[in-house]
Amino acid sequence: MTITLDALNASDRAGFVAALGDIFEHGPWVAERAHAARPFPTVTALHEAMMQVVRAAPRDEQLAFLRGHPELGGKVARAGAMTDDSRAEQGGLGLDRLSDDEFARFERLNAAYAQKFGFPFIIGVRRHTRDSILARFERRTRNDFEAELAAALSEIGHITRLRLVAKMDGPGQPKTTGELSTHVLDTTHGLPTAGIYVELFEIGASARSCLAAAMTNDEGRAELLAGAPLRIGAYELQFHVGAHYAARATSPPYLDIVPVRFAIAEPESHYHVPLIITPWSYTTYRGGG
Amino acid sequence: MTITLDALNASDRAGFVAALGDIFEHGPWVAERAHAARPFPTVTALHEAMMQVVRAAPRDEQLAFLRGHPELGGKVARAGAMTDDSRAEQGGLGLDRLSDDEFARFERLNAAYAQKFGFPFIIGVRRHTRDSILARFERRTRNDFEAELAAALSEIGHITRLRLVAKMDGPGQPKTTGELSTHVLDTTHGLPTAGIYVELFEIGASARSCLAAAMTNDEGRAELLAGAPLRIGAYELQFHVGAHYAARATSPPYLDIVPVRFAIAEPESHYHVPLIITPWSYTTYRGGG
Amino acid sequence: MTITLDALNASDRAGFVAALGDIFEHGPWVAERAHAARPFPTVTALHEAMMQVVRAAPRDEQLAFLRGHPELGGKVARAGAMTDDSRAEQGGLGLDRLSDDEFARFERLNAAYAQKFGFPFIIGVRRHTRDSILARFERRTRNDFEAELAAALSEIGHITRLRLVAKMDGPGQPKTTGELSTHVLDTTHGLPTAGIYVELFEIGASARSCLAAAMTNDEGRAELLAGAPLRIGAYELQFHVGAHYAARATSPPYLDIVPVRFAIAEPESHYHVPLIITPWSYTTYRGGG
Amino acid sequence: MTITLDALNASDRAGFVAALGDIFEHGPWVAERAHAARPFPTVTALHEAMMQVVRAAPRDEQLAFLRGHPELGGKVARAGAMTDDSRAEQGGLGLDRLSDDEFARFERLNAAYAQKFGFPFIIGVRRHTRDSILARFERRTRNDFEAELAAALSEIGHITRLRLVAKMDGPGQPKTTGELSTHVLDTTHGLPTAGIYVELFEIGASARSCLAAAMTNDEGRAELLAGAPLRIGAYELQFHVGAHYAARATSPPYLDIVPVRFAIAEPESHYHVPLIITPWSYTTYRGGG
Repeated sequence: MTITLDALNASDRAGFVAALGDIFEHGPWVAERAHAARPFPTVTALHEAMMQVVRAAPRDEQLAFLRGHPELGGKVARAGAMTDDSRAEQGGLGLDRLSDDEFARFERLNAAYAQKFGFPFIIGVRRHTRDSILARFERRTRNDFEAELAAALSEIGHITRLRLVAKMDGPGQPKTTGELSTHVLDTTHGLPTAGIYVELFEIGASARSCLAAAMTNDEGRAELLAGAPLRIGAYELQFHVGAHYAARATSPPYLDIVPVRFAIAEPESHYHVPLIITPWSYTTYRGGG
Repeated sequence: MTITLDALNASDRAGFVAALGDIFEHGPWVAERAHAARPFPTVTALHEAMMQVVRAAPRDEQLAFLRGHPELGGKVARAGAMTDDSRAEQGGLGLDRLSDDEFARFERLNAAYAQKFGFPFIIGVRRHTRDSILARFERRTRNDFEAELAAALSEIGHITRLRLVAKMDGPGQPKTTGELSTHVLDTTHGLPTAGIYVELFEIGASARSCLAAAMTNDEGRAELLAGAPLRIGAYELQFHVGAHYAARATSPPYLDIVPVRFAIAEPESHYHVPLIITPWSYTTYRGGG
Repeated sequence: MTITLDALNASDRAGFVAALGDIFEHGPWVAERAHAARPFPTVTALHEAMMQVVRAAPRDEQLAFLRGHPELGGKVARAGAMTDDSRAEQGGLGLDRLSDDEFARFERLNAAYAQKFGFPFIIGVRRHTRDSILARFERRTRNDFEAELAAALSEIGHITRLRLVAKMDGPGQPKTTGELSTHVLDTTHGLPTAGIYVELFEIGASARSCLAAAMTNDEGRAELLAGAPLRIGAYELQFHVGAHYAARATSPPYLDIVPVRFAIAEPESHYHVPLIITPWSYTTYRGGG
Repeated sequence: MTITLDALNASDRAGFVAALGDIFEHGPWVAERAHAARPFPTVTALHEAMMQVVRAAPRDEQLAFLRGHPELGGKVARAGAMTDDSRAEQGGLGLDRLSDDEFARFERLNAAYAQKFGFPFIIGVRRHTRDSILARFERRTRNDFEAELAAALSEIGHITRLRLVAKMDGPGQPKTTGELSTHVLDTTHGLPTAGIYVELFEIGASARSCLAAAMTNDEGRAELLAGAPLRIGAYELQFHVGAHYAARATSPPYLDIVPVRFAIAEPESHYHVPLIITPWSYTTYRGGG
């Protein structure tokens, strides 16, 4: 059930905290202090006000807040003892079901990170693949303390923005979703190409998994991902064009399955990846933006 | 050691057969009868004359000749009891070292084929990958007798053309080699792109193997295959462009390894597969021809 | 002032003819006979019913109707003695303001056509450039009588469809408009390119004229033509990209004004003509459809 | 008649000056002083030695040398009173046959330039179109004295390099020629496209002139310019592809004459401008380099 911005703007402090107290992990004080800044013209302004409370808090309070977060892929996750939000976020990537080897790798990273910074590694897991989490984990462990504190608070912003948007109705919602789409155009005929089967794979360090599949519609278009942040990582689209050109093809046809491999770096962006194709050539580029 | 066309044209029948008698498997009579057609202006004309002897032979003799060929991937191959030429040809694809499952599949196809046609399946293995041999084997087993006899003689032509070219010096050599090359052009700078690492994989039904690798030269060019027939089959080039664009890249870069997957259908052709690239787009097409 | 389909469906014959009697040039009988087929679920169905009246009319009546049309670029046009609709249609192309040479050419074609077929040349001028009218005029004069009668009635369909749509409100309007748009994408940066100045020229046999100009918007898009049928003919888009790449350019820059020359053959279609560009390359294709 | 480098290296001073004395306009002293630097391993080294003589000369001598050059498009040119080399160079661009307006424009520029610098404007006209000469003339008139002296000597280098290469046989000829070529590839068929008629135009400020025309050969290639420096300026290639696609075309065909407009900035480079085309799309880029 969602709340409207109008209702929030009209509520007293107790109601406000009841509604928003769990947006920041174990941190109802953030909502308490943000209450004074009402009314909020947009959901974005509300989120910014709550983040300002965190950034303005004394260093001790900030660290206590960060320490209230669960470890990524850690024992708390395995034991299931997380807040509902954290459980849903980590579970979506399977971080609560790691193999023993993976669990050991996360344990090592968690230990090194905690020893250096004194709080657990925090990242908006809904914006990442497992590979990009590990890459960031290793890179951020090399940060100095101030840079890493800023990075952790920036990730708190990503996490709470998503939690807030899930709970709120109202104007000025911050952008928390991305989109991956494609468009197949056959320049032999000068027409969009309907009925091309397209598969999307995540290309992991050790494995690949099929995330989505679609047929191009009458305009030659297909939407593969939408309605959520895209996950930073490496992907491959596979366009099954062999059948489309079967009549004019050599045996075997020069092009059959066309792979287009690319990375997503901006979870809230639109990645439009068209394929302009003939039986003997193709062009692809990043459109959208 | 090779022979010149002039020497062959000047030789008597015994010398001619000594030189060419083993071009056609267990068929020295082909050379014997072709001797009368001397002199040959080109190696192509010599080969054509020998093929004409085979096509003009009585049906019984043709069938006996075809029956003199070893089974593909069969017991003779495993036992090593083939002519040197056949052993080298089949061994190049590993058809003498099949797994038990593969051996069983060839056995079934060999049995079905022999029962229907009365002679073993013949194919110019140097022009094929293992996958394309199996595809042709299954397709040709569905032929009627006359179509298949013509197909078998056509393959005899491919096989003996290669054997003859390996043995002969002289003008008018038939074309028995193909070429696979690439060219990387960076249209951000309008310049050929040197130093791009390119790998070539064969994409088999069950596995992929790296066949060749090269760096593009100062003209942005690289040659992957040359000097032999290309093998009919499916391939993937992988262009490692990530490093080239590292300075201007997002993290991770949109393009890192660019795969281009294509089939080769004409073993004696030039497949030129250029990549025209920017950090956010590329075009590829079949050039050459 | 427009009429609703509901009002028409509810009107008696006199009201129906008053509303639609001038859609067919000097042919109120078409509306009179179509009245019986009420009610019409869509404007398209209404138009189709009126065309069916024309096609079902006796040959004599059809010819009399065709003969009621003015000559193209003829004396009637020069004298200004046409129906308002005809005057607006012919005037839009300047057919009422021809040079003496052009007038003479139309006179010759009008004479040859009238002598062969006994009625004036009829064409939906709003779907054509002056060049394509002359090309069709010459081609159709070579038709036999039956083919040309069908061609003339088909053009009556185009003309009256536009007149009807201009007069009617209501569901199921037939498609009478086309669109010409573009999209500039800079693959050096992987982003749409705002602020590119684009000009559209008609490329006539003897001259070129600028029809429209636009700057690409924040999505890199610009619409050049819309809201009317496109005119069959030859065009050139000119993209002024030199300034966009000035910082990285050689002197002079390799690309400055990029011309894309193309023909429009389908007036009611969407021609989307993107330009995917770097300082040293570009790709264009017909999108839309 | 050309001279070999060996002969020059063996000659005495008088012979050396007789051979090379007119390479530098009215400046036999350049050859006289360069004689001491024999032997020259390459023609490039010989040219460099002569340029070094000029750069090492006292400022007065340099200026006297520059003042010995004729004005561009000036009265001397009109009157025909130039050295043979200068006459051929200026005549190639028609600078001795200017219209009165153009003559007046050159007169104004010549006067302004001479007043500021005290010597005539010098430029290697064989590397320029008339438009690029005027553009450089206006730009260089804004230089300060030292920058312009260096620019003038750099142009002396271009001019004398061409004169020397025209006169010499021998190893290590400096590069003085460029090349403009194209390649048409039809990706509907995956084949080079023979028989496409290609025209090359120079796009001047006020007019365009056809410089060359060619048909693509069996490899789809055509060479438009070679054997001389390319002229800095703006060009348009026109590919007549309409006939090639006539069978599958709409009426009129979407693509008929494809213009590719580009600038040449480097006279001694290879501009390879391919066209990869289907009936509904094309890609072009600068290859070569």
